[in-house]
Amino acid sequence: MSESRLWQRLMRLAEIGARGDGGVDRQALSPGEIDAWRLLLSWATEAGLEPSTDAAGNLFLTRPGRDRALPPGLIGSHIDTQPTGGKFDGAFGVLAALEAATTLPTPARDLTVVAWMNEEGSRFAPGMMGSEAFADVRDLATIRAARDAAGISVGDALDALHAAFPDMPRRPLGFAPAFYIEPHIEQGPVLEAQGIPLGIVTGIQGKITWEVVIDGEEGHAGTLDMDRRRDAVMAFARIATRMQRDVGEADPIVKFTIGRVTVQPNAPSVVAGRVVFRIDLRHPDNAALQAHAARLEAAALAEAPPCAVTVTRLVDAPSNDFDAGLRDRLAAAAARLGLPAMPILSAAGHDARHLAPLCPAAMIFIPCREGISHSPEEWAEPDDVQAGAALLAAVVEELTT
Amino acid sequence: MSESRLWQRLMRLAEIGARGDGGVDRQALSPGEIDAWRLLLSWATEAGLEPSTDAAGNLFLTRPGRDRALPPGLIGSHIDTQPTGGKFDGAFGVLAALEAATTLPTPARDLTVVAWMNEEGSRFAPGMMGSEAFADVRDLATIRAARDAAGISVGDALDALHAAFPDMPRRPLGFAPAFYIEPHIEQGPVLEAQGIPLGIVTGIQGKITWEVVIDGEEGHAGTLDMDRRRDAVMAFARIATRMQRDVGEADPIVKFTIGRVTVQPNAPSVVAGRVVFRIDLRHPDNAALQAHAARLEAAALAEAPPCAVTVTRLVDAPSNDFDAGLRDRLAAAAARLGLPAMPILSAAGHDARHLAPLCPAAMIFIPCREGISHSPEEWAEPDDVQAGAALLAAVVEELTT
Repeated sequence: MSESRLWQRLMRLAEIGARGDGGVDRQALSPGEIDAWRLLLSWATEAGLEPSTDAAGNLFLTRPGRDRALPPGLIGSHIDTQPTGGKFDGAFGVLAALEAATTLPTPARDLTVVAWMNEEGSRFAPGMMGSEAFADVRDLATIRAARDAAGISVGDALDALHAAFPDMPRRPLGFAPAFYIEPHIEQGPVLEAQGIPLGIVTGIQGKITWEVVIDGEEGHAGTLDMDRRRDAVMAFARIATRMQRDVGEADPIVKFTIGRVTVQPNAPSVVAGRVVFRIDLRHPDNAALQAHAARLEAAALAEAPPCAVTVTRLVDAPSNDFDAGLRDRLAAAAARLGLPAMPILSAAGHDARHLAPLCPAAMIFIPCREGISHSPEEWAEPDDVQAGAALLAAVVEELTT
Repeated sequence: MSESRLWQRLMRLAEIGARGDGGVDRQALSPGEIDAWRLLLSWATEAGLEPSTDAAGNLFLTRPGRDRALPPGLIGSHIDTQPTGGKFDGAFGVLAALEAATTLPTPARDLTVVAWMNEEGSRFAPGMMGSEAFADVRDLATIRAARDAAGISVGDALDALHAAFPDMPRRPLGFAPAFYIEPHIEQGPVLEAQGIPLGIVTGIQGKITWEVVIDGEEGHAGTLDMDRRRDAVMAFARIATRMQRDVGEADPIVKFTIGRVTVQPNAPSVVAGRVVFRIDLRHPDNAALQAHAARLEAAALAEAPPCAVTVTRLVDAPSNDFDAGLRDRLAAAAARLGLPAMPILSAAGHDARHLAPLCPAAMIFIPCREGISHSPEEWAEPDDVQAGAALLAAVVEELTT
């Protein structure tokens, strides 16, 4: 296994969609992601891996095993980024998996590297579309109907992706892997603060997302009396402030975010007629998650008047636990390698959530600087990248010998 | 003077930039406004009026008078609209002026109809660029540098406008008219509630606008602890709520609006790093206006932390009084015509504000339904349109005989 090659590939992949500020903007199904596929394919085919895709736009790169009738082992992550993303989120997992699949001795069963379609959900919401379709959590037709801000549908973008790779074999959507392991940066501060290079992920905190639509009434900013207004921006401000008080500031563990807000008509001298916004709520305890969700929905209904409000849940994913046997195996392998490791909860969602019902699944975390992610500032140290890749390779070899 | 012709022209002009919902989207210097110029020019030249423009993109249509050396009388308004505008705001004043200039007996002095460039300020902010340049309130170079959301500058859009009319004479920027009278819909509920068809405008309430930039720090919605966040959306919600409490709800006369809000990166699972928003504040009393302005600026500074904030005044226009002699003349003419009229304060800003220092200036208001404006619902009754046009024609005839 080549340490310097993995790091060089991380830096090379980050050139595709590079922002001027050191970050990466390579959103799902964009021309940049298609270029990134080409780069992965050049590395994979050079190493004898077999590419394939499925109807959901997931990319598979398979190292043939001795018995090809056995269910394959699956390892990987995603290569799409946030619009203001970094070099490591997703890319580290895919490239560490590629390194393992490339360098291990011929495995007993097929070993498949996967890059899931649209993990991030920034261009097309919600995210994890590829793994959701793969695991039959969400219907492909529903996924294809989602549109980006420019009105382009996932369906059209998927067709364009496949048209760019006309010769790539298409496999049926979904299968039962022998196991799934996803390496990823932590996207939180715990490992760095503890000085420990490896996290064996115990599970993923639950997540609920909403779209909220506030309907007021447009009017002239200079003439409409304040007490006759139904101002959607002011209703938004009240709702957001109440939600922050009732949920964001009420629990040291909860994560509550309003990251997207659009105002209509968004003109400086027009009282806003409509505001549409998204809520992202996460908590590791399912009862607490649902209790906070109820508080958020109550806050929207209480503070919206005199505007009207509709509150729609987009994602409702309870917290999950990863496979205990696989976690034990990861911990033992880390000890054998002499690498410190600790159990850790994943605060962020990952495709591994949807693989866990299909097969033994687990995740490996490595530290990232100051816990910063979804930002051009995102950074992981070469030694930690190497530690995560080494642990993956060790366990995969154990599982496929 | 043709009553049915004026109404028909209002409806015909509203077809240019027509929205599906009955409104009009014909923003400043857009292709639609160029088409609207062509339509006005066809009507004006048919009636023997002489077109001209100036470096600020104002359109002038002049009925030649007996003594062309005398300063012209100036009447009109604007033909640009808000993105969700109506059929009457601006267009009524220009078409009523065109009707008067077309049908009166040959005047003693030139009588010039004007359509000012970018009154609304929705595409390019702030508004009233044409009259500000004409009155030397704002430097033309500064105006040309302003850009729309797509990055197009006023300068480039102005050059494109002039290129579309290569044969139109260009007059020097600014002159001292003999008088200025602007007819307009009230954009408020007073005349309708009183059942009075004509308002003689006493003055325009003062207006201050700001751009506010909140700088926080981007982060991952699922991992960044709440107490470590510098969330620009939450800072916006606090600031807006505090401003509404301290100003919007504290004075029955004030008008306080946040109509434009943009969030960056505006992704559902990214804590927002930046919010930029506009404030529009109006009050007829200059001392109260400045006191509220100070409260707004204090609210932004108080509620922004842990985010940073910069607060920039874009427009700072005190309230003004229109010419008393001209107002008396309008009231007397209304009485002669048997049309009820009342004095009224303009809550909205108008180009007439910038003409008032140059010459005797006044405005005529007519009612609009429920006071609604800057909305597809905007509506004025044919009888009121006719009353406003008749009063304008009567006074202009008196002033130019």
